[in-house]
Amino acid sequence: MENLNEVSGGITAARGFKAAGVKTGIKNNSFDLAIIKSQKKAKAAAVYTTNQVQAAPIEVCRNNLEDGTASAVVVNSGISNACTGKQGLENAYKMVEKTGEELGVNTDEVIVASTGIIGKQLPMEKIEAGIESASKKLDRNSDEKAAKAILTTDTTTKQIAVKTEIEGEALTVSGMAKGSGMIEPDMATMLSFITTDADINNQLLQKTLKAAVDNSFNKITVDGDQSTNDMVAVLASGQADIPKITAGSSAYEKFTQALHYVAEKLAKMIVKDGEGGTKFIEIEVGGAASLGQAEKAARQIANSPLVKTAIFGESPSWGRIAAAAGSADDEFDLEDLKIVINGEEIFGPEEYVHSFSKDILTRDRIDIVVDLGLGDVSEKIWTCDFSYEYVEINAKYYS
Amino acid sequence: MENLNEVSGGITAARGFKAAGVKTGIKNNSFDLAIIKSQKKAKAAAVYTTNQVQAAPIEVCRNNLEDGTASAVVVNSGISNACTGKQGLENAYKMVEKTGEELGVNTDEVIVASTGIIGKQLPMEKIEAGIESASKKLDRNSDEKAAKAILTTDTTTKQIAVKTEIEGEALTVSGMAKGSGMIEPDMATMLSFITTDADINNQLLQKTLKAAVDNSFNKITVDGDQSTNDMVAVLASGQADIPKITAGSSAYEKFTQALHYVAEKLAKMIVKDGEGGTKFIEIEVGGAASLGQAEKAARQIANSPLVKTAIFGESPSWGRIAAAAGSADDEFDLEDLKIVINGEEIFGPEEYVHSFSKDILTRDRIDIVVDLGLGDVSEKIWTCDFSYEYVEINAKYYS
Repeated sequence: MENLNEVSGGITAARGFKAAGVKTGIKNNSFDLAIIKSQKKAKAAAVYTTNQVQAAPIEVCRNNLEDGTASAVVVNSGISNACTGKQGLENAYKMVEKTGEELGVNTDEVIVASTGIIGKQLPMEKIEAGIESASKKLDRNSDEKAAKAILTTDTTTKQIAVKTEIEGEALTVSGMAKGSGMIEPDMATMLSFITTDADINNQLLQKTLKAAVDNSFNKITVDGDQSTNDMVAVLASGQADIPKITAGSSAYEKFTQALHYVAEKLAKMIVKDGEGGTKFIEIEVGGAASLGQAEKAARQIANSPLVKTAIFGESPSWGRIAAAAGSADDEFDLEDLKIVINGEEIFGPEEYVHSFSKDILTRDRIDIVVDLGLGDVSEKIWTCDFSYEYVEINAKYYS
Repeated sequence: MENLNEVSGGITAARGFKAAGVKTGIKNNSFDLAIIKSQKKAKAAAVYTTNQVQAAPIEVCRNNLEDGTASAVVVNSGISNACTGKQGLENAYKMVEKTGEELGVNTDEVIVASTGIIGKQLPMEKIEAGIESASKKLDRNSDEKAAKAILTTDTTTKQIAVKTEIEGEALTVSGMAKGSGMIEPDMATMLSFITTDADINNQLLQKTLKAAVDNSFNKITVDGDQSTNDMVAVLASGQADIPKITAGSSAYEKFTQALHYVAEKLAKMIVKDGEGGTKFIEIEVGGAASLGQAEKAARQIANSPLVKTAIFGESPSWGRIAAAAGSADDEFDLEDLKIVINGEEIFGPEEYVHSFSKDILTRDRIDIVVDLGLGDVSEKIWTCDFSYEYVEINAKYYS
């Protein structure tokens, strides 16, 4: 993409933002509380989980983001503050109050998120001490600590920053995310925070974010489960030396490209770090009569435990892919089906089984292309395989 | 149930049936071909997979069962004859021709089924030699060999026979099944054959079978995947010393009870022997506004890899059950949700987390009762957990 470059750094790469990550003691000697602070009140937008079980912080964010502005984000990991009733909601409000107090901003300018075990109350003394401490440590070099503090079973931090140029001046979009298990459409157990120094009104920001999320976080799946706490939030500080971005302008197009790029990269990092996953899998279903048909077939394949365990075992069990596709749609006809794995034709048309090398699944990146032969619409879904480690990680008690 | 007793034996317990199981060499030195033979032409009915990918034998059965009669069943394991095109269909027809020839019955009186690897052609020489050999070995004592010959990754044979009494005379229903992975609604990769000595017309037999399958095989799930070869077939020899069974009679009620009992027992055996499964799980969702709502929530919980791995780890992660239920339906309200595991109240109402013993999942049978608080309809689903062994079994190359 023209003039779009990845640059070093994370959530503080965009101008006007500081961050901090601290250890509150909720998680044993790990970073578990992060704050992101915008120098001035920023435009803000967010997209939330569609699970009917929504954690307390989600409710607080919906309230606080009604006016489309925010000055800070506070996030803890270890306990998700979901299924916690009135007390949980009170605690989520206490988090934004305390953060507002420490940072000298209004309570309703604070976004809050929690991730971790369901059904446990937050230890508010630890949380409040952590907010106090993090507020004093805010700087532009603590992005990695902040990115660590939002992780749960993730094995690596997920950060990215990109720069683009508008009329000779730099525009930055940067972000961090946490993922792992329970990743499915609508962003189950996934948090991502994105910052930008663009100057843009909040309606346009919301629209751009929604489109970016649909093309990134909503296209990934680890195990088909949806979570209770997911959100993607973006803050726009307006501190880049560029004019206000308006709908339809070339500046808007560049900003959109940058936001999509950041969202897609973070989403793919989440899949690559899926619980126990050993392979990154892209499933593209083409030849569909509609987008819904393509997506349903792609998800059916992506979420099939039989397909996922076969890929873990590097066993080209294409019959399972055919069976998963066939269970997705009534119009499906095996006679028309084609399956290509990592560039090699495997099956079809007319139920023809090609001879193919048995080691096509030995690499880390697996591309499965399925053609339904029913139309010309296609859709992609990203996922990972199912390993022994997936079972091991999830057999533990998290609630 | 009144006068309904389990008796020893399997598929040949009903009067008028013989069976055989032989080794053709498709599977290394294992029984892999079975024949069931009715002394006279029997009334017959069957229910098939709803996957759009249907194996060749299914097509042959649909044809041969159009007239509602059959005299024999031939089944092989090891290769499923699915995704095999014209050649596969020819081979399926060859199987019924050869069987008819050997047994001296018409080709269209033979039911055929195959289970195993997808996409490979059957070695017809071995199959035909097996049919010849099995035809000569038919007797009333080979039910266990026949039950073995239809297995794939199953670890045990699945057989049952029950007797009931009608006007002082015995009526028998007996059956065998194979299951393991890919078990989901509509009987994915599952075969079951049921025999009875009842005298009943084929329409009534079809109706009774359909109801029995809906309440048994269609309520089990191992991994949410649907298969290409599933069928449940019943043959009624009419050789019991009882009058013809007519709709609405008390004899019909007793026959129905017996058939349901056999189907439910076989279905539960399949779940108990689910690939790598260590626990039998019953999920009952009550308080639903409709049957569809109850079933959807129950399946969402039953098919959640996070719930299944937690149960494997004996971790009472009830939050995952709540999240799975919450992702199933828009009307869901966490405030109304109640979760009971093995008789202990765990969660709700009003998001209250009860104190409960941490060892509630240590036993082999797990009962999860979820109340949605939206109505008074309930539905049950049976499943098993996800273990390391599930991954190990399915990481192998089966296609």
